[in-house]
Amino acid sequence: MNDDEKDIIKESPNGIVETKLFKFDSLTLENGEVLSPVQLAYETYGSLNNSKDNAILLCHALSGDAHVAGISKTTGKPGWWEFLIGPGRAFDTNKYFVICSNVIGGCSGSTGPSSIDSKTSKPYGMDFPEITIKDMVNAQVRLIDSFGIKQLFSVSGGSMGGMQVLEWAYSYPERVKTAIPIATSFRHSAQQIAFNEVGRIAIMSDPEWKEGEYGEKQPENGLSVARMIGHITYMSDDSMNEKFGRRVRKQGKDGKKLNTGFEVESYLRHQGETFVKRFDANAYICITKALDFFDLGENKSLTKHFRGTKTKFLVISYSHDWIYPSIQSKEIVKVLKYAWADVTYCEIKKSYGHDAFLIPHEEQGQLVGSFLENVRQGR
Amino acid sequence: MNDDEKDIIKESPNGIVETKLFKFDSLTLENGEVLSPVQLAYETYGSLNNSKDNAILLCHALSGDAHVAGISKTTGKPGWWEFLIGPGRAFDTNKYFVICSNVIGGCSGSTGPSSIDSKTSKPYGMDFPEITIKDMVNAQVRLIDSFGIKQLFSVSGGSMGGMQVLEWAYSYPERVKTAIPIATSFRHSAQQIAFNEVGRIAIMSDPEWKEGEYGEKQPENGLSVARMIGHITYMSDDSMNEKFGRRVRKQGKDGKKLNTGFEVESYLRHQGETFVKRFDANAYICITKALDFFDLGENKSLTKHFRGTKTKFLVISYSHDWIYPSIQSKEIVKVLKYAWADVTYCEIKKSYGHDAFLIPHEEQGQLVGSFLENVRQGR
Repeated sequence: MNDDEKDIIKESPNGIVETKLFKFDSLTLENGEVLSPVQLAYETYGSLNNSKDNAILLCHALSGDAHVAGISKTTGKPGWWEFLIGPGRAFDTNKYFVICSNVIGGCSGSTGPSSIDSKTSKPYGMDFPEITIKDMVNAQVRLIDSFGIKQLFSVSGGSMGGMQVLEWAYSYPERVKTAIPIATSFRHSAQQIAFNEVGRIAIMSDPEWKEGEYGEKQPENGLSVARMIGHITYMSDDSMNEKFGRRVRKQGKDGKKLNTGFEVESYLRHQGETFVKRFDANAYICITKALDFFDLGENKSLTKHFRGTKTKFLVISYSHDWIYPSIQSKEIVKVLKYAWADVTYCEIKKSYGHDAFLIPHEEQGQLVGSFLENVRQGR
Repeated sequence: MNDDEKDIIKESPNGIVETKLFKFDSLTLENGEVLSPVQLAYETYGSLNNSKDNAILLCHALSGDAHVAGISKTTGKPGWWEFLIGPGRAFDTNKYFVICSNVIGGCSGSTGPSSIDSKTSKPYGMDFPEITIKDMVNAQVRLIDSFGIKQLFSVSGGSMGGMQVLEWAYSYPERVKTAIPIATSFRHSAQQIAFNEVGRIAIMSDPEWKEGEYGEKQPENGLSVARMIGHITYMSDDSMNEKFGRRVRKQGKDGKKLNTGFEVESYLRHQGETFVKRFDANAYICITKALDFFDLGENKSLTKHFRGTKTKFLVISYSHDWIYPSIQSKEIVKVLKYAWADVTYCEIKKSYGHDAFLIPHEEQGQLVGSFLENVRQGR
C-alpha cells in the first residue's frame, strides 16, 4: 500500500496505538555470534485469554514494521494490515490477541545496523552481525515466551513475513497451531537474488555509503534506486498499465521530451524519496541478505522434516505476482502434501502484483478469517 | 550473447571486417532541431547486385553496434548476429547484401552525445538533441540512399532493432519488401518504461555524472547499475536458475555470508563492469528515452495506416521473454492482420528470456532463412 492509499483510512476500530519495546540480554545467532543487548519493537491488539491460546503473530515484509494495525501515536498512520485486523475482521481482535514485532536487523525500533554497538558506543553499521530469517524468528520466540504463550494460534505474513511463517512451522512446529504463509517461497530463485543484489550494489556504490559508516547522512541516492527496483518488482505489468499506462505527467520548460516525465517515473521517484526518510540503508542490505540466504533445505528433505507436523496450513498466492510467483507457493503446498500435512491452497486472482497482499481486498480476509474460525471451532 | 559465449566463435566465414564511416551534412530531427554534421558507423557483407534489390538492413538493439558479423579488425570479436549471417546462413551473403549501422544517439562510431558539438568544440553531453526511433531510421535512409538502393529486400532486428523495423515499415512502406521485427513492441508498457527510468536515475544520481558533463571519467557506478537492471530483464527466471541457481561462488575471508557471493551476483557485476568500458552513459540515457517514447499510435489508427501495405512481415517472439512478452508481438500481428497485411507469426520456445534472439539457436535462422527465400523466389 503506498502512502496515498494509506491516507484513505482516516479512522481505525483499533484506535491509537503505541509501539512498545521488549528488551532482553542477548541472542545467540545462527552463525554463532552473540547479539547483546537486544530490543524488539512490537505492538499488540485484543487481549490474551487466560489459557493463553488465542495469540496470533503477524510477521512483516522487507520494508514493514511492528505497526500492523490501528493509528500510530507517533506518525498518525494506519498499520500495514489495518484492513485485516480488528473486531469482526479476519484477525478478529474480539477473539484473538494479535502481536507484531519489527525484525532484528531492521530499523523501526528493533536492534539493527543503526543501533548503538555497546562495545564501541557507535552505530554497528556493517559490523552488525549477519541476520538470518531464523534469527528473526528466534527473537520473536523470546517475545512470545515473555507473554507466557506456549503455542501460537497462528503465525501469518506475506513475502519475507511468509518466510518467517515457514521458519516457525519448520523450527517450532509444536508452538504453531496454524500457519498462513502468503506470496512467499522456501528459497529465492536466481532472479529474486539478482534484483536484491542490484539494489545492494546501488547502495554500496553510492559514495555516501562510506562502507556503511555514513552517520547522519545516509546514501539516499543508492537506497532510493534500490527501493525503485524493488517497487517495480512488487507491481505487475497489468497493474502498472492500469495505474499509469504511458501517460505523461508534465512538459519540461524547454519543451524537451527528456524533461517530460511519464507518470510512472514520478511515481517511482516519489517512492524512492519517501522510502529513504524512513528506512536505513545498512538495514536494507542486512535484511535483503537474510532473504537471499533463506533456504530450509531441498524439497525432499523438507518433506521428510514436515512429516507428522500437526500445524494446519493455509497457503495463499496471487495470480499476477511475478516476483514471488504462484509456482513457488505451489512448491510449498506440494512439499506439505507429500508430508501428509493439513494444507489448503488458494491463488487469488488480482491484477496487482506481489503488493496484492498489502492492498485492501475482500478475498484474502475471507480466506484467512474462515480458515482461522474453522480451526478455532475444531472443524 | 555475453563475452564468454562470443569467445566460443573463433573464426568466421565473414572474415575480418572493418567498420566504415558514412558522413553527411545534416539531419532534421523529429523535434525540428538540426543535427549537423552527422556520421554513421556501418558495416556491410556480401555484394549489392546490379539491380540493387538484394540489400538487407539489420538494426541493432540498445547496446548493440554496427558490428553485426565477421571478426572485428579493431576488437577481434565476432559480430552480434554472426550465427545468422554468411554464406548459407539465414541472411545468406551469397544472395544478399547485408548492411548494419550504429544508431545516431549511440556511442559506437555514429554521432551521439559523446561526439564533439561543432558549435562548442566540446562533447554534446546532455545538449545532444533528443533522438527518436524515427530519427535513427531517417539517418539509415540517408545511408541506404547513398548506395542507390530504392527498396530494401528486408529490414530486420530485435528489441530496439525491431522498433526500427516497425518504423521503416510504417514510414517507408514502399522501400521495405519484407520486414522481420523480433521480440519487440509498438510501444513500451509502463513496466518497460519503469525499468529504463530506474536505470537513468541510477546514472543521473551518480555524482560522477555531473549533469552529463563528465568528460573522460564517466559515471561508471550508475551506468553499471543501469546495465545490471537491464540484464536481469533480458534473462528469464528459468534461464537464470539453469545458469546460476542458488550456487555460491566464494566465501569471504572472514567467513561472513555478506562476503559470500551468489554466482548470479558476480555474473551481474561482471556484466556491469565490462559494459561501462564500451558504452557511454549519456548515450544510454539518450537511447532509452527514444525507446520509451516510441509509439506509432494506437492500434486502430495503426491498422488504418498499414491497410494496403505490400510489405510482407515475419514476426517472431520468444516464449520466456517477459520484458518484451509474446503478447506484444501478437498485438503487432493483430494490427497487421486487421490491415489485411501478409504476416506470419512464430513464437519460439526457449528457456532464455529476451536475450534469446542474440543467442545462437537453430529455429530463428531457419524461420528467417525460409521466409526470405520464399519471397525471393516469388512464392
